[in-house]
Amino acid sequence: MKTIDVCLSPDLMHLYDVRDKAVVVVDILRATSCMTTAFAHGIESITPFAKLDDCLAMKSKGYFTAGERDGKKVDGFDLGNSPFEYMEENLKGKKIAFTTTNGTQAIAKSAGAKEIIIGSFLNLSAVANHLKELPHPVLVVCAGWKGKVNLEDTLFAGALVELLKDHTEPDCDAPLAAQHLYNLAKQDLFYFLKESSHVKRLAKLNIYKDIQFCLTSDQYNLVPVLRNGVLTV
Amino acid sequence: MKTIDVCLSPDLMHLYDVRDKAVVVVDILRATSCMTTAFAHGIESITPFAKLDDCLAMKSKGYFTAGERDGKKVDGFDLGNSPFEYMEENLKGKKIAFTTTNGTQAIAKSAGAKEIIIGSFLNLSAVANHLKELPHPVLVVCAGWKGKVNLEDTLFAGALVELLKDHTEPDCDAPLAAQHLYNLAKQDLFYFLKESSHVKRLAKLNIYKDIQFCLTSDQYNLVPVLRNGVLTV
Repeated sequence: MKTIDVCLSPDLMHLYDVRDKAVVVVDILRATSCMTTAFAHGIESITPFAKLDDCLAMKSKGYFTAGERDGKKVDGFDLGNSPFEYMEENLKGKKIAFTTTNGTQAIAKSAGAKEIIIGSFLNLSAVANHLKELPHPVLVVCAGWKGKVNLEDTLFAGALVELLKDHTEPDCDAPLAAQHLYNLAKQDLFYFLKESSHVKRLAKLNIYKDIQFCLTSDQYNLVPVLRNGVLTV
Repeated sequence: MKTIDVCLSPDLMHLYDVRDKAVVVVDILRATSCMTTAFAHGIESITPFAKLDDCLAMKSKGYFTAGERDGKKVDGFDLGNSPFEYMEENLKGKKIAFTTTNGTQAIAKSAGAKEIIIGSFLNLSAVANHLKELPHPVLVVCAGWKGKVNLEDTLFAGALVELLKDHTEPDCDAPLAAQHLYNLAKQDLFYFLKESSHVKRLAKLNIYKDIQFCLTSDQYNLVPVLRNGVLTV
């Protein structure tokens, strides 16, 4: 049986060999939730950038620029980090250049994997079904918060471990811990997270509506895949 | 109220500023459990070494040498990594030079803290009571397994967060995750851990008896403290 492992922080990526793995990058609040939403609303492609300047430079090439630093939209960018911004009609068929505090850094650190896909609660079952079909062992890479472990990404990792439990076996303790936490929280993820420091911090930015949406499972049946540095579905 | 945080792996220590902190180093299976047991049986001091050779060199200075690499006793060392070895009468009043795969590395990475103490389930309440008296914010440093997060150290961190919940507030998501896991597991830590890969691995070494002992709370009422590079009580 193939294995499943969870890297709880991008700062632990040196411990994992991605070369034979299908990597799922997750940044629930809110990068990978935005990306999933964007594709569900007709975006053609998303090119992730780890650096702000590289992202902004794509504006001159006709891209929409999107992302955040420290949870806030960046000056001069077209789009921020709320999934609701990615539902607009005028984005249909467009290309987006995307950078975020944590999410796009996690994508950059996953370079070299057999496959890199984007996971969120919004496309949870689609991601699980996609991974069932692949022969590769699975590594879930949690974007965390500036290197620190966060609950919402860990819960998503646990949800995947739970959904894939008949198809994969946990490779270490991190997937087991994540699975336990998910099973504890799954009845009401929002209630469980209300004590999370990250959610408390984001609550100050008035994004409860975003958080509730980002914790909703299976809104969209699609899997963004990175090919030659560009995400498409 | 002072804060409590949990560093789930020594490889995340760069994210934490220890300078104003009381740091609790934990390596349940089995370094810090052995250290606690040793002091309960009359050991005078334990000098931790990150490097094997530095530790072995202390033999010529009259020290007992102790520790393990990859869970196994090292050739030429007097003592291994089973707490039961540290109950022997002939160790009373002696000095030990100690090195392990994960535990002593975690101590080394905590250098510069206001205070560094040794935690295990065996001295859980003593550690909690000690921390209640100190003015410093608390950081629990989990030794993990070669950089990866493990369940038993995380559970101990969660136990401390739980015991200190009226005296400290969690600084981030990691202490909350640890606390949830501990509360889920506390009825029977051994049963909970039996699915842990680390315990499965150690089970191959025939140390179920060690594991059960290391998961027993409050056997000893003492707190080893590091002063000038040497642990004493």
